[in-house]
Amino acid sequence: MSRLLRVLPLGGLGEIGKNMTVVEYDERILVVDAGLMFPTPDQLGIDLVLPDFGYLRERADRIEAFVLTHAHEDHVGALPFVLRDLGVERGIPVYAGRLTAALVRSRLDEHRLKRAIQSVQELRPGERVAVGPMEIELIRMSHSIPDSFAVLISCPLGRVLITGDYKFDQTPIDGHPPDVRRLAELGSEGLLLLCGDSTNADRPGISPSEAIVGPQLERVFAQCKGRVVVTSFASNVHRLQQVLDAAAATDRRVSIVGRSMRKAFNIARTLGYLNAAEGALVPPHEIEDFPPERLVVLSTGSQGEPLSALRRMAHGEHPHVSLRAGDTVVFSATPIPGNERAVNETIDRIYRIGADVITPRDADVHASGHGYAEDLKLMINLTRPRYVMPIHGDYRRLRLHARLAEAVGVPPERIFVTENGRPLELDEQGARLGETVGAGVIFVDGMEVGDIEDVALRDRRMLSADGIFIVVATISGQDGRSVAPPEVLFRGVPFLTSSEDGFVEDLRREVERSLARAAADEVREIDLLQEQLHDDVAAFVYERLRRRPLVLPVVVEV
Amino acid sequence: MSRLLRVLPLGGLGEIGKNMTVVEYDERILVVDAGLMFPTPDQLGIDLVLPDFGYLRERADRIEAFVLTHAHEDHVGALPFVLRDLGVERGIPVYAGRLTAALVRSRLDEHRLKRAIQSVQELRPGERVAVGPMEIELIRMSHSIPDSFAVLISCPLGRVLITGDYKFDQTPIDGHPPDVRRLAELGSEGLLLLCGDSTNADRPGISPSEAIVGPQLERVFAQCKGRVVVTSFASNVHRLQQVLDAAAATDRRVSIVGRSMRKAFNIARTLGYLNAAEGALVPPHEIEDFPPERLVVLSTGSQGEPLSALRRMAHGEHPHVSLRAGDTVVFSATPIPGNERAVNETIDRIYRIGADVITPRDADVHASGHGYAEDLKLMINLTRPRYVMPIHGDYRRLRLHARLAEAVGVPPERIFVTENGRPLELDEQGARLGETVGAGVIFVDGMEVGDIEDVALRDRRMLSADGIFIVVATISGQDGRSVAPPEVLFRGVPFLTSSEDGFVEDLRREVERSLARAAADEVREIDLLQEQLHDDVAAFVYERLRRRPLVLPVVVEV
Repeated sequence: MSRLLRVLPLGGLGEIGKNMTVVEYDERILVVDAGLMFPTPDQLGIDLVLPDFGYLRERADRIEAFVLTHAHEDHVGALPFVLRDLGVERGIPVYAGRLTAALVRSRLDEHRLKRAIQSVQELRPGERVAVGPMEIELIRMSHSIPDSFAVLISCPLGRVLITGDYKFDQTPIDGHPPDVRRLAELGSEGLLLLCGDSTNADRPGISPSEAIVGPQLERVFAQCKGRVVVTSFASNVHRLQQVLDAAAATDRRVSIVGRSMRKAFNIARTLGYLNAAEGALVPPHEIEDFPPERLVVLSTGSQGEPLSALRRMAHGEHPHVSLRAGDTVVFSATPIPGNERAVNETIDRIYRIGADVITPRDADVHASGHGYAEDLKLMINLTRPRYVMPIHGDYRRLRLHARLAEAVGVPPERIFVTENGRPLELDEQGARLGETVGAGVIFVDGMEVGDIEDVALRDRRMLSADGIFIVVATISGQDGRSVAPPEVLFRGVPFLTSSEDGFVEDLRREVERSLARAAADEVREIDLLQEQLHDDVAAFVYERLRRRPLVLPVVVEV
Repeated sequence: MSRLLRVLPLGGLGEIGKNMTVVEYDERILVVDAGLMFPTPDQLGIDLVLPDFGYLRERADRIEAFVLTHAHEDHVGALPFVLRDLGVERGIPVYAGRLTAALVRSRLDEHRLKRAIQSVQELRPGERVAVGPMEIELIRMSHSIPDSFAVLISCPLGRVLITGDYKFDQTPIDGHPPDVRRLAELGSEGLLLLCGDSTNADRPGISPSEAIVGPQLERVFAQCKGRVVVTSFASNVHRLQQVLDAAAATDRRVSIVGRSMRKAFNIARTLGYLNAAEGALVPPHEIEDFPPERLVVLSTGSQGEPLSALRRMAHGEHPHVSLRAGDTVVFSATPIPGNERAVNETIDRIYRIGADVITPRDADVHASGHGYAEDLKLMINLTRPRYVMPIHGDYRRLRLHARLAEAVGVPPERIFVTENGRPLELDEQGARLGETVGAGVIFVDGMEVGDIEDVALRDRRMLSADGIFIVVATISGQDGRSVAPPEVLFRGVPFLTSSEDGFVEDLRREVERSLARAAADEVREIDLLQEQLHDDVAAFVYERLRRRPLVLPVVVEV
């Protein structure tokens, strides 16, 4: 007898990032990926944004396993937080490919989650493992990090394929093309549901092979007379390999700078995913003494991150390298949406120095890791799913992906564009969208993880926009009269000292008037007194400055 | 006898926005444009950013006139602030083309600068007027607002051409192509210096004519079955005209929504720059009753502005229109750098509703108002300047513009890439960059205009990132001992109530310890006591929360 199958996206829909999908059969749970997102500028002071995994917290004892498609932050970054929250002592297994497992273990180690490290289990493509009433299998795909897999979930009702991030690269750098044979088999045998990556659903044609980048890098390295700095994602091991190869071909040596770049490089090299001769490398502290025309610097900072090696080089704040006229900086990556400004600032800084910049707009020095429209259509035609649910993308891309599915013949009523927290429910009768569960966001702020109170963010917004006024009134416990002159302090309120000299005195008098009025009205309860002070001060400040800072009255009774 | 000619950019170099150039001959000053910029996200709570016009303030009695190239905010938006600061009673004349004059007068009226309104004088292209020892003349160019002009400044040393924003549109909507004949004349008679717009120096080829947009709009209007909403810049009168024409051709009527759109529409129509039959328009309150297939809504909001009509329509918060499935929204504009996120959010919101979106990536529904590389080369070849100084652009675009000048034969030593505050100085001996003058920014924050203290912005950043702790200690004036329990307040600090229940109590005890220590050490001076409290509290908070909020100790002596 078959039971309900529920596929519930907790993140990655209506947004780019924090991908996480729950697959639930007969009330047993498999979680595919646990990614994070970086905060938007209006999420003031927030460090990281995680999917709201409250649904999992309430059903922790039903979770059979996690499975990870690949090791990018938007697919694995939330895992340490989720595992700590659910309790590492549960020992919930985490299945992943070999490189993913290594990178995730290193991350769990940084989070001091030793018990969780032991739960990470390598799964080879094609190998099958039971997770409760389901069975999972990894199917090799190609993407901008090695060991990227689609996850096939089989249960008595049928099979679900969650593609992870992918493109159909016929000439991948590591020689492992996507397993189209297995995908075609699924199409023949029957696939119930396809949940496919929508990131590039808006791009026509087929995603270019990673292999196009190497010859372009080689051309740039050969033409540049000075140093070349290449910046890319540290995890893009294929790209790092191509930089090494292009450097070798043009008689340049490579120096790796930036903490995350060195770390990823070392892990990938140790596991054999990266092939670098010892003599090919130059330690960072020797960069400035090395002939510029024989050097390539491989650096973090492709997203304009404030503390990245590239940004520090551009501002003359890097211990080993300062950019100068004659250098060429190659951006071998495109900005993640939202990072455009930071990337443009970095580029402009480099131009200001007089160095040159090459971006993917100037030459093919980058290839996306995500399939374009024709890749997405090919995936549907190969796997011939009964139902399609676009995942990984903002609403625009989800809808465009749905249109592609229609274009290759999937009937519209079998295509489901849903949102975070709204599951697709499947049984013998068919498929339909179910009831929405809570699926907001969880913020990481310093050491704390939680559902940040709206009021704290609202306060931060007020503080950041207009600053704060603090008014301290000291009153007698006997008669409620003021016993010391009121103190007025402010922070983040500009211009006050220069152009409003009498303002603070006037405000202090206003506070005294307010206190006298309260005493006359016999307002003695501290709460009421503070409320009155707040309103009087806020009105006075608005009247004089046309600003609405946070006003904080403090009444001290002595 | 010839004297020193100084061309000093106060804004618009190393950035996109707040264009302002000072031209000074024999110590008499002409100011070309006075633009503003919108703040970046890290300029917390700032409303507007103006060029630092301290240089002008110190030399107010030497200013002969302002001249405005066209009526965009990045060229005229700072004018009310500058005129008020310099003193409207000076009656410094402001020269501008007819539409520019009308729009600027309306803006000065909003700022209640009646005296300044009278100083605005219309100048017709070709007409010459003396400004002290100089003479100015407007030369017609084409751009995305009618009446866009280059300014020719003649003085005994030679002629300077400041192009304003321009492209060479051979088929402009208003039938007034750029005056290439006059530009060629300058080339024959001799031009000393060309200061040219660099905005699109990075785009190859020639900037497409505004006329390409009309047929595309018509095609979209004809194909859409429901309502079409077109969003564009209110000031792009040519675009508004083409929307009106395309609507008429497809039997649709037009409704204008958004305050700035209605205002620009009315001014342009009154002055005859816009041709709209009375029957062509539908009042906004009739939109919902009007057959969708016969309606075009022309709206503000192309930059994703939070309070714009489009954004409110998309969130169901507009009094007259709510977007719904079946509607098509045409973005007839590209995002200004920095606005990408807001625009993408708006687009995604519209897709979520189920409405369709057409952007300039999907169809030619927008044409830039700025010349591409070939326009810039044509300008140099027409005017044959001795010296070239790229203006209006970030460093990247300024450098690319310099390369274009080199490509058409200007010797590199006659091309000057400078920065805000660093003048080009010319005399009979030649040209060179002079000493840098102060050229930061001036912020507008509420009612106040000024050189915001760094400390206020730094405080806002701390407040926005980590919130604030306020500690109030009440001590006896006799012995410095605490006479009331310390008060601890905080704002913008998340999670505290939920996960750190004992924290506030612990912090209060820490304050008491600190006070007791101070009393024992006989620290009696309030300043020293506050400093000690600050350090103790900050250390305690960091130890416990790993955050560095603003800590504000208040000591009340009773």
